Amino acid sequence: KLELELDRIEKGGYEHFMLKEIFEQPRSILDSMRGRLELEAGHLNMGGVRAYERKFVNADRILIVACGTSWHAGLVAEYLLEDLARVPVEVEYASEFRYRNPVITERDIVIAISQSGETADTLAALDLAKSRGATIFGICNVVGSSIARATDAGAYTHAGPEIGVASTKAFTAQVTVLTLLAMIVGHKRGALTDTRLRELMVELETIPAKVEKALELNTEIMQIAEIFKDSTNFLYLGRGYNFPVALEGALKLKEISYIHAEGYPAAEMKHGPIALIDENMPVVVIATKDSSYEKIVSNIQEVKARKGRIIAVVTEGDTIIPAMAEFTIEVPATSEVLMPLVSVVPLQLLSYHIAVLRGCNVDQPRNLAKSVTVE
Amino acid sequence: KLELELDRIEKGGYEHFMLKEIFEQPRSILDSMRGRLELEAGHLNMGGVRAYERKFVNADRILIVACGTSWHAGLVAEYLLEDLARVPVEVEYASEFRYRNPVITERDIVIAISQSGETADTLAALDLAKSRGATIFGICNVVGSSIARATDAGAYTHAGPEIGVASTKAFTAQVTVLTLLAMIVGHKRGALTDTRLRELMVELETIPAKVEKALELNTEIMQIAEIFKDSTNFLYLGRGYNFPVALEGALKLKEISYIHAEGYPAAEMKHGPIALIDENMPVVVIATKDSSYEKIVSNIQEVKARKGRIIAVVTEGDTIIPAMAEFTIEVPATSEVLMPLVSVVPLQLLSYHIAVLRGCNVDQPRNLAKSVTVE
Repeated sequence: KLELELDRIEKGGYEHFMLKEIFEQPRSILDSMRGRLELEAGHLNMGGVRAYERKFVNADRILIVACGTSWHAGLVAEYLLEDLARVPVEVEYASEFRYRNPVITERDIVIAISQSGETADTLAALDLAKSRGATIFGICNVVGSSIARATDAGAYTHAGPEIGVASTKAFTAQVTVLTLLAMIVGHKRGALTDTRLRELMVELETIPAKVEKALELNTEIMQIAEIFKDSTNFLYLGRGYNFPVALEGALKLKEISYIHAEGYPAAEMKHGPIALIDENMPVVVIATKDSSYEKIVSNIQEVKARKGRIIAVVTEGDTIIPAMAEFTIEVPATSEVLMPLVSVVPLQLLSYHIAVLRGCNVDQPRNLAKSVTVE
Repeated sequence: KLELELDRIEKGGYEHFMLKEIFEQPRSILDSMRGRLELEAGHLNMGGVRAYERKFVNADRILIVACGTSWHAGLVAEYLLEDLARVPVEVEYASEFRYRNPVITERDIVIAISQSGETADTLAALDLAKSRGATIFGICNVVGSSIARATDAGAYTHAGPEIGVASTKAFTAQVTVLTLLAMIVGHKRGALTDTRLRELMVELETIPAKVEKALELNTEIMQIAEIFKDSTNFLYLGRGYNFPVALEGALKLKEISYIHAEGYPAAEMKHGPIALIDENMPVVVIATKDSSYEKIVSNIQEVKARKGRIIAVVTEGDTIIPAMAEFTIEVPATSEVLMPLVSVVPLQLLSYHIAVLRGCNVDQPRNLAKSVTVE
């Protein structure tokens, strides 16, 4: 009885840790920016970067190693760092990286991302990179973890303890920290003007409120979940900054509902996966207003022509896609650079509700461990 | 009547173009090496590389852009070029590359891979790279195609016309050409010793015969296809050189049988997809004897512990995995560097037979075009 009571208190009134953590995101994103984004003073601070500023400015290449959800945060960072800082970035599955004899030099920076800081494959990849002389930068949530200790420098995500096995607030905290990193490095490298930096800082500060707004979609998403709860397969499509979000949305659904969901860059669909689409296939398209908006509209038309059931995540006020999609989820507008922080939220909620409706153990899905400490 | 007759002749006695093309591979791989691998004279020739030898030797980085199956050939090339030539390689979806403002310099080489040479996204990606001053190298099958004409240099795959929409012999020809390229560049850069180069040349010459041997598995694979033909989902797992093969095997099944199959690097499975595994999930594991053999054996154990149904592609004579897997497909041993050319063959056959048994239109699957000339 006492244990049940404690459990209830720990969940803060939410039915599951995962839901609590999804709803904590406006706060956890703010925490991950605290002391780093100083809008009034007009500057960005990140202790771990300051000491290695010269390394970041002169880096020939940044390699990112991670697994699972952290790997998706790494993919977002590839777009961020190439776009804002103009450094070539390569994102690697930690487990593949260490066994394929990768080319690493002393001028490379390797960023390791891991919520727990204990992911065995990531730790091993980092050791390999270290032995080849690269500078290692860690992004972890758990303070004092093995990866945090093994790196030259790093930044904690400060998302607070994450209990649900399917990572949610740790992902958005990782993306926030990586966004700050790309902004700092981009500015120092001269790739980002003062004006553009300032604009992004102003916009980044509005993100917690926009995530809060996205969370208001909860009831609406629960209704969509009800309709699709018995689907056996899902496709998730996105382009650009929303491509990693599509992968992450699909992974969430896999992890907790055991539905086979797969993410794809939307344009790759016509090179194969489109064959899967018929009237039974739900297709989640993340199609917010950005530089590839028109292209993704035509991808939606392709899916529609094959009778796929479209659930579209769009920017508030969009009138074109709602006329095409079976269901539309509207999220607040923001810079395309920051959109993953907002657009991932409805996908987290969708997977949560589908899993609950299917009677799955949301916080402790079968076969999965929170921290994968075996290779 | 005449048309039917012509059709029969064109298919050379095979029921479908795809099967004919799968069986043509010993010959088409040989054709793609002809005049390039000169074992007796002890050297490798590739016209398109010769003129750009200095560029390849001094390249800071090689970028590969492609779509679909060609993108998988590009992933194999990433392993080949990093391993044999010690050049950092990044493989990009052509459609994503062109829209994400990638960092490209004049010291980069961009390799575009496309069977038809008409793939719109790849062509556009190549134009972008060209405008930024990169050297463009094309790998196409169709002589005189748009991509072949737009590149600075290149190599034809000489696989002969490919009619089946699902690419088979074009893939192995692409991988063969990329292998030769990695060997030439690796040797010129001093990363590959004379001895090692010679060993690989000798081994490469045996590949057509080994592919021939793999094709003898046809009846055995048909029996396995019979057992799994009604499965709704598949996972394909591989590590290292066999990871892109897993992706390609899954894509083949998607394309022609409309079964939702997904490829994964085997070690990533425990970061999410393993939740999908139960007694209904067939898991194809490409687990030939190579440097990650022991690791993949433990991945197989993880799948088995969750009651997944394992179909393993192993090296002839393996005794460990056959004791664990429900079905085992034995392919001839070869260097791990060359294994994709052999290990992909049973996966092509498996997808073919499953599609035929399901009554699908193998050569012209729904929703797909042979050459994707729209973005």
